Amino acid sequence: MKVEHIGIAVKSIEEAIKVWCDILGFKLEGIVEVESQGVRVAVLEVFNGVKIELLESLTSDSSVARFLSKRGEGLHHICFEVKGIEKILLTLKSKGIKLIDKSPRAGALGNKVAFLHPSSTNGVLVEIAEAGSLKV
Amino acid sequence: MKVEHIGIAVKSIEEAIKVWCDILGFKLEGIVEVESQGVRVAVLEVFNGVKIELLESLTSDSSVARFLSKRGEGLHHICFEVKGIEKILLTLKSKGIKLIDKSPRAGALGNKVAFLHPSSTNGVLVEIAEAGSLKV
Repeated sequence: MKVEHIGIAVKSIEEAIKVWCDILGFKLEGIVEVESQGVRVAVLEVFNGVKIELLESLTSDSSVARFLSKRGEGLHHICFEVKGIEKILLTLKSKGIKLIDKSPRAGALGNKVAFLHPSSTNGVLVEIAEAGSLKV
Repeated sequence: MKVEHIGIAVKSIEEAIKVWCDILGFKLEGIVEVESQGVRVAVLEVFNGVKIELLESLTSDSSVARFLSKRGEGLHHICFEVKGIEKILLTLKSKGIKLIDKSPRAGALGNKVAFLHPSSTNGVLVEIAEAGSLKV
């Protein structure tokens, strides 16, 4: 599994871009709205193929809104790219990993994704995403 | 800048290894103790050159201990590999980024590292590390 992206919860994408792009120098690939999840996502490119996703909430009850309300801005999740997501979910479940998504759903960029529950992974929200078609 | 590693604060490295290595399949490269920072670090290899560091506190007053006490286990920091860390720190400071380390110090693996203050980077603890000599 390789790291596909790191998600960061932010209050305002526009303000965060001033830091992560204008100062730290990451390239903005695009901004997408994912209404089904109530988030707006800015995708930044990092040198070794890893992306950073800046996540802004579009609604007051999205998971990003709840995170911001509880913890403030900060690291939200890691996404690993996998091949054969359905089989991997079954394997992880059989080994005792608690799943948020028992079967894949459509991710921000149209690909198949699933989240593992942080209670099984040392407090880390882990996303797995099927390799391929991860384009903005 | 490329992502060098992602740091995860955990209560017990041995317990965390059961999840991240035995179930999720990452390879354990080694475990080092960094007494100056009061932490024990397990370095895991991820496919695209990014590492995961599982961080366990050796003392009750380390920054990892404070993080665990405040937030519980979870994503702790991201480290980016850079070239010319001293110049980069000066540039970041001149652009208004608050620095935890105004000059580099020795990191877990003997390389030059510095931390940026999360208040300047959307709540994310960012480490930068000089490229090269990042070996366990």
